[in-house]
Amino acid sequence: MKQFISVHDVTDINALVKKALAYKANPLTDKNLGVNKRIGLLFLNPSLRTRLSTQVAAQNLGMEAIVFNVDKEGWALEFEEGAIMSGNKAEHIKDAAPVLGSYFDILCIRTFPSLKNREDDYSELYISQFIKYCGVPVISLESATLHPLQSLTDIITMTEHAPAHKPKVVLTWAPHVKTLPQCVANSFAQWVNAWDGKAEFVITHPEDYELSEQFTKGATITHNQDEALKDADFVYVKNWSTFNDYGKIYANDPKWMLTEEKLKLTNNAKVLHCLPVRRNVELSDEVLDSANSIVTQEAANRVWAAQAVISEILQRGE
Amino acid sequence: MKQFISVHDVTDINALVKKALAYKANPLTDKNLGVNKRIGLLFLNPSLRTRLSTQVAAQNLGMEAIVFNVDKEGWALEFEEGAIMSGNKAEHIKDAAPVLGSYFDILCIRTFPSLKNREDDYSELYISQFIKYCGVPVISLESATLHPLQSLTDIITMTEHAPAHKPKVVLTWAPHVKTLPQCVANSFAQWVNAWDGKAEFVITHPEDYELSEQFTKGATITHNQDEALKDADFVYVKNWSTFNDYGKIYANDPKWMLTEEKLKLTNNAKVLHCLPVRRNVELSDEVLDSANSIVTQEAANRVWAAQAVISEILQRGE
Amino acid sequence: MKQFISVHDVTDINALVKKALAYKANPLTDKNLGVNKRIGLLFLNPSLRTRLSTQVAAQNLGMEAIVFNVDKEGWALEFEEGAIMSGNKAEHIKDAAPVLGSYFDILCIRTFPSLKNREDDYSELYISQFIKYCGVPVISLESATLHPLQSLTDIITMTEHAPAHKPKVVLTWAPHVKTLPQCVANSFAQWVNAWDGKAEFVITHPEDYELSEQFTKGATITHNQDEALKDADFVYVKNWSTFNDYGKIYANDPKWMLTEEKLKLTNNAKVLHCLPVRRNVELSDEVLDSANSIVTQEAANRVWAAQAVISEILQRGE
Repeated sequence: MKQFISVHDVTDINALVKKALAYKANPLTDKNLGVNKRIGLLFLNPSLRTRLSTQVAAQNLGMEAIVFNVDKEGWALEFEEGAIMSGNKAEHIKDAAPVLGSYFDILCIRTFPSLKNREDDYSELYISQFIKYCGVPVISLESATLHPLQSLTDIITMTEHAPAHKPKVVLTWAPHVKTLPQCVANSFAQWVNAWDGKAEFVITHPEDYELSEQFTKGATITHNQDEALKDADFVYVKNWSTFNDYGKIYANDPKWMLTEEKLKLTNNAKVLHCLPVRRNVELSDEVLDSANSIVTQEAANRVWAAQAVISEILQRGE
Repeated sequence: MKQFISVHDVTDINALVKKALAYKANPLTDKNLGVNKRIGLLFLNPSLRTRLSTQVAAQNLGMEAIVFNVDKEGWALEFEEGAIMSGNKAEHIKDAAPVLGSYFDILCIRTFPSLKNREDDYSELYISQFIKYCGVPVISLESATLHPLQSLTDIITMTEHAPAHKPKVVLTWAPHVKTLPQCVANSFAQWVNAWDGKAEFVITHPEDYELSEQFTKGATITHNQDEALKDADFVYVKNWSTFNDYGKIYANDPKWMLTEEKLKLTNNAKVLHCLPVRRNVELSDEVLDSANSIVTQEAANRVWAAQAVISEILQRGE
Repeated sequence: MKQFISVHDVTDINALVKKALAYKANPLTDKNLGVNKRIGLLFLNPSLRTRLSTQVAAQNLGMEAIVFNVDKEGWALEFEEGAIMSGNKAEHIKDAAPVLGSYFDILCIRTFPSLKNREDDYSELYISQFIKYCGVPVISLESATLHPLQSLTDIITMTEHAPAHKPKVVLTWAPHVKTLPQCVANSFAQWVNAWDGKAEFVITHPEDYELSEQFTKGATITHNQDEALKDADFVYVKNWSTFNDYGKIYANDPKWMLTEEKLKLTNNAKVLHCLPVRRNVELSDEVLDSANSIVTQEAANRVWAAQAVISEILQRGE
């Protein structure tokens, strides 16, 4: 693996899942693989699980991990080619990226969308510029449109709970109080669609909350949440802001919150969420505190997803 | 030791002190004890000594330490059960804690009191919720009402300077410009009272600055600072805000500052303070720069206190 | 080497450069030199290259590096002797420094000038107080008037590109949008002047931008940039604010920006800049993106400069 930006960087999803679960069983089995290698974790936005799980994964492989909160500890970066830098951006990515590449063997970066300019966000300007100029393998810790480490984790977690039959996987929109990116939903859709016919995949959301077809193509899409939930084996709950009239909150109907009542429509479904979750807004306490919720296991699995990916990149070309 | 939240988690104070002093003499003697174990240091409030000394202590035991400033690098946490999370708290402790517990073998947390609601603060809601949900041993890096690593350090430092006779230990209130918690004073009182009849213990403060009897019971309490200081072997200087009319600054009489003049009343006492100290407000330059001050040694000892505690927790059940 | 604050701490610049280049060829050759030693990196101001390169250098020597952003993670420090600390400074350097010294074998510190009071800045009050009280070797990560790790890096990088003849080295002022310290320019001048007759050294800047003679003495100084650039082998581009009427921006003439046109006056000069650089303000895109620019190599060399210095300090007295 040469980089990890989307599912397109993965040749065999199930092999990667298998590798991750092997690390879960034996975390330190490749403790020497990354010795004297260094991984940089660059954050242009806040993070808890992603930062800690990737740091832990790197340590499990014997690597030295250095975290750098670019905005808080450094300064604002410029990404536009040809910019006359007389404003508040102190450094251009063309200068910062190759220097960072010289200090690290692998670079991980988190950079959120503006949610203001869809064209810019969906062109993935920031992470693309970073990849173009840094000269070392890049792992996305969530970019403007995708969150592949989360999606790999989600596939791992569903694999652990796989029923005997081909499962019905439902991605459902949920209410929220903030304007959130489409990344997690896009990425989940991209991965489940690429997951080799392993699931029946349904996406449900209110009108006006359509996601980009670029990622959803292959899924059944409905505005009827009850219908979608029927006989579901896995329910993935997530809020996102509008894609078409970009970055808005339209109707925020509390009826879309996942409750115990709604869970009865499912096949005793396991419930996933990438966290952080707004309790009693996105999901009810009853659901989150029930045996149906596997959100903690899912978040714990972030370590093994990251470890499998870093391992693949360390072993590239071997 | 299963956790370290207060003196009640310690079965033998003097044995723990002895262990700490053994580490001071040979810092790396247990360099392999924590190999492939990971400790998380979570800060909801700023820290210098506590953060660095605990990190150093963990490294001395061969552990990988990861620091995470929850508020600055992550987001605000919700602690109330049943909260409808439509405000500015992005994640509930019920969801964050078990995930953090899955990434670490030991978790350390610092969380200050609000100083607004005494009942909430003195119920130790934050650290209790954290312990309840994280599933791994927890070390307090200072909570709403106590600061046990500091108090253990204080006992260690007094042990190093113990006179032949049973020492007189005086905790004296000092003026300050900010509204401070009662933690350090509460905790010092709790530990000295539990210290097995090793000291004569006097607390002195202006009227209205009574501490909770829960911690002071066993000590002699007086509003006459001169009388308290008489023949003292150790003087512990610390400001705190009011406990009864909670979280206020009443009279802030500069006469309560510890000066060289006042030190003459003592038995050439050693002076302690947890730092940071406001020079010429809490203590005069003359005292801090004199041979009587052992505040630097005390702060340096924070490493050995933390190392003894982490070691005990690593060895629990053996 | 007992500390690294300025070129005066170096007995043989070329030997130090040679050592750095040996580390560049074999980064891990002294991987055991710093084992069980600990280095603290304290930042009172933001940093990207300095922080990361020093951390990498320390790890290459087997040391444990701990970064601490004093202002962001700790609190504001007081540096004035005798201060009555009733303001917003929570701790005196006299108390913080010896404690930090007790936790680390080597301390590195970055502290910028105020640019308000020249006498205070040029007395190097902050770093001097720190050195006075911490009790362990100190490495400057940039102080009020100097940036020695940058200058050592600059000498290393010019050595790698040294022509057969004695090179002409030009330090030229460049426009900027912010009021910047004189540190990098001062320090570069100090090092090139001390560099053993190895270069012909010219400084050029607009009127009113004179630097302190304390550092420039030995260089040719001219206000005619074209004349200065003529036949130059190395051009070091840097903005600084005024020294005489301290900390001001006078004329900010865009004609001083280094362009491809101006580069034609030189002997196909290599262009250096400490980064971060304001593109199309200090230097044009054409220059930075040309083969003449060695700014990325220069920034990458920060690791080897830091590694050579830390190594020298670890081996002091041997």
